Amino acid sequence: MNTQDAIQTEKERQDGTGKSIPRVVIIGAGFGGIRAARALHNAPVQVTVIDRNNHHLFQPLLYQVATAGLSPADISAPIRGILKKQKNTEVVMAEVTGVDLEQRQVLTQKRELPYDYLVVATGASHSYFGHNEWAPYAPGLKSIVDATALRRKILLAFEAAEMAQDEEQRRNLLTFVLVGGGPTGVEMAGAIAELAHKALVSDFRHIDPASARILLVEALPRILPAFPEKLSKKAQQALEHLGVEVCTNSPVEQIDEDGVVIGGQRLVTRNVIWTAGVAASPAGKWLNAEVDRAGRVKVDADLSLPGHPEVFVVGDTASCMQDDKPLPGVAPVAMQEGTYVAEVIAQRVAGKEQPRAFRYKNKGNLATIGRSYGIADVGKLRFGGFIGWIFWWAVHIFFLIGFRNRFLVMFQWAWAYFTYQRGARLITFDPAALQKQKELVEELTSV
Amino acid sequence: MNTQDAIQTEKERQDGTGKSIPRVVIIGAGFGGIRAARALHNAPVQVTVIDRNNHHLFQPLLYQVATAGLSPADISAPIRGILKKQKNTEVVMAEVTGVDLEQRQVLTQKRELPYDYLVVATGASHSYFGHNEWAPYAPGLKSIVDATALRRKILLAFEAAEMAQDEEQRRNLLTFVLVGGGPTGVEMAGAIAELAHKALVSDFRHIDPASARILLVEALPRILPAFPEKLSKKAQQALEHLGVEVCTNSPVEQIDEDGVVIGGQRLVTRNVIWTAGVAASPAGKWLNAEVDRAGRVKVDADLSLPGHPEVFVVGDTASCMQDDKPLPGVAPVAMQEGTYVAEVIAQRVAGKEQPRAFRYKNKGNLATIGRSYGIADVGKLRFGGFIGWIFWWAVHIFFLIGFRNRFLVMFQWAWAYFTYQRGARLITFDPAALQKQKELVEELTSV
Repeated sequence: MNTQDAIQTEKERQDGTGKSIPRVVIIGAGFGGIRAARALHNAPVQVTVIDRNNHHLFQPLLYQVATAGLSPADISAPIRGILKKQKNTEVVMAEVTGVDLEQRQVLTQKRELPYDYLVVATGASHSYFGHNEWAPYAPGLKSIVDATALRRKILLAFEAAEMAQDEEQRRNLLTFVLVGGGPTGVEMAGAIAELAHKALVSDFRHIDPASARILLVEALPRILPAFPEKLSKKAQQALEHLGVEVCTNSPVEQIDEDGVVIGGQRLVTRNVIWTAGVAASPAGKWLNAEVDRAGRVKVDADLSLPGHPEVFVVGDTASCMQDDKPLPGVAPVAMQEGTYVAEVIAQRVAGKEQPRAFRYKNKGNLATIGRSYGIADVGKLRFGGFIGWIFWWAVHIFFLIGFRNRFLVMFQWAWAYFTYQRGARLITFDPAALQKQKELVEELTSV
Repeated sequence: MNTQDAIQTEKERQDGTGKSIPRVVIIGAGFGGIRAARALHNAPVQVTVIDRNNHHLFQPLLYQVATAGLSPADISAPIRGILKKQKNTEVVMAEVTGVDLEQRQVLTQKRELPYDYLVVATGASHSYFGHNEWAPYAPGLKSIVDATALRRKILLAFEAAEMAQDEEQRRNLLTFVLVGGGPTGVEMAGAIAELAHKALVSDFRHIDPASARILLVEALPRILPAFPEKLSKKAQQALEHLGVEVCTNSPVEQIDEDGVVIGGQRLVTRNVIWTAGVAASPAGKWLNAEVDRAGRVKVDADLSLPGHPEVFVVGDTASCMQDDKPLPGVAPVAMQEGTYVAEVIAQRVAGKEQPRAFRYKNKGNLATIGRSYGIADVGKLRFGGFIGWIFWWAVHIFFLIGFRNRFLVMFQWAWAYFTYQRGARLITFDPAALQKQKELVEELTSV
């Protein structure tokens, strides 16, 4: 008897014929992992989903949490809740520390989980392109903790400006620089502009929040490079209309406590937000695999690890080429890959021929700018404007998990739309309580 | 010129006649402070509200955040937003460090704020009755940070139990002890029972959440001592119906990392929640004032500090006797005191006769037990049951600030009522991010 028995008894592992049921372990309950688990609903396998958090996070709306429009719980769903009706699936909340490819075991802080098939869907974190020293001054946006930290940073900037003693200090506190003109940067810039120019406008007595400077800085010649050039231009115009200064061809040379340096020029600010690069999770190291520049694992045509047909890598963790271009790190890619991998596993378990190589069907790109402007590049349709915004909105509501979250997000958007307010303007931070919390969690997790 | 000029220019302080406008400083934006500020809307005074948080918190629903029913932002409203239309009022986010009664100045970490009238409405925190060493093992519920820490503790207990290796450990992890049978203890116990017995019931594979033991421990002969005996009894029956074990006449003798000792008996548990005593904020020290056993400042009949008619103390910070009994530390007392003090100040400024001594009008007591049972003691009406629950519900919605919050809370209650689910089951904690956050805030607040 060893620890694995607590997770999975021999009785559970054996079906009536005495044949053992294949064990599928999925690391990560993001878009890829959840899709894979759901697609294995009816397969004759035993599924274990491991995540260090207890919730699935709808990352495309994370910027709304960071800009005080939504609450964290509105865009999260407990993983156990999502999979509760799936009797062949269990959920383990644990931090994965490695993978033993020889023994076919996933290693966690507490125990080992054996697998017959492994799906690695651990996502990505920020990459500072070799400048990790910038990290403390330019936080990014990947998790709920990131989002509430950014919300605090943004709201505290206005509070500090209200208390500032001189005009220069005030100006530095009310300068926001977003580094990276992809969808996250564009959406954050639009939302901060709305916050400063609309929601906060009559809340202060000594500053004019509308005087805040918001800069979106991009190294490439245009923002939203994944979109057609015409839509990039429209998005830039929409941002400028909201009061955002868009600086293209502007690689950042330095970020420190005094601000950023762009093109030899220093911009003094206390609010730099990193919306540029991502790096894959440490899965490449766990798998001892070949990775691309961003740390993503190079996979075969069926998304398996070369030499290990029983190990699959999906989503932001995988480096998958299609028509000689790498697939982008977006939710639809992860979702389609998760579903595909589940099919491969189901086919293999059934002893059937394997489906053909994975191919991503790009259904389109969407981005939103502020409260009523969106751009869409869907099939042959390319448009920007209010219709684009409605379209963006509908797609995001549709993909949110759960009626409760859909309703809450819809209501809060409608409310924000008509009132110009943002409902989750909460600064929560208590240094004294932090230590207490930390001890609590250490105590609990040391079981 | 000194620092106060940044807050209040001489121009603002002078009305047309050259007479200076009296400055009213209110410390604390809880029920008492917000009421006082709002009641001074039309008074010819300059009002400054100081709070260390940026939000007003609707404490009566805090237990819903701790038990994953609501999000923090649903029961909070930005103080600036509440008072934005009140042109004679400004809001300062700062930590008060003391009061200089001689110079008539409030001291904060950053600057001094001079006052002509001062309202101290700083509320209360937990009191462990001289056993501060219990604090790490029995967290209480006063702030949003407390509530999310408790939510994490409760949800992690189930996660840890799912991973536990033996039955004994599992039992200890699924034993919840609430110390103190007042409204908070009763409401928390009911909510944890609902969570374990309904919301989580099909989420786990190795434990039965419904097997959780929930104990409500009270030193006095009955729970809810502020209610008539008959209603206490009804509440106890309702709790027992939900599976809560109610232990009256059971003073707690010891709380440590292994659990609690009651009547010489040790109860092994990792989940002790403090819902018993409160102690007033340090305002007593600031004012160098006589305080009662709970640290509350003894005040005159008009709620002013003896010897300092320009200083008022309201809410949980004040020790106010009425008919030889101290007024309870509940929201309606704080609200009525806040309004009263604003009237006193307005009258004095207008040179009119002062209103008669403060008298609390008790409009009733309410408490709720689980999802559909409430008790009400309102005037001559005393009832328990579903009607009591609806009544409790309606009163709480009515007093919540803001349409958005009312709507969100109503929807989430209705959703929870019909689905038995709890929507905010979010464990957020990232030890690595904590240090980063701490540095960020220190950086920002060191301006």
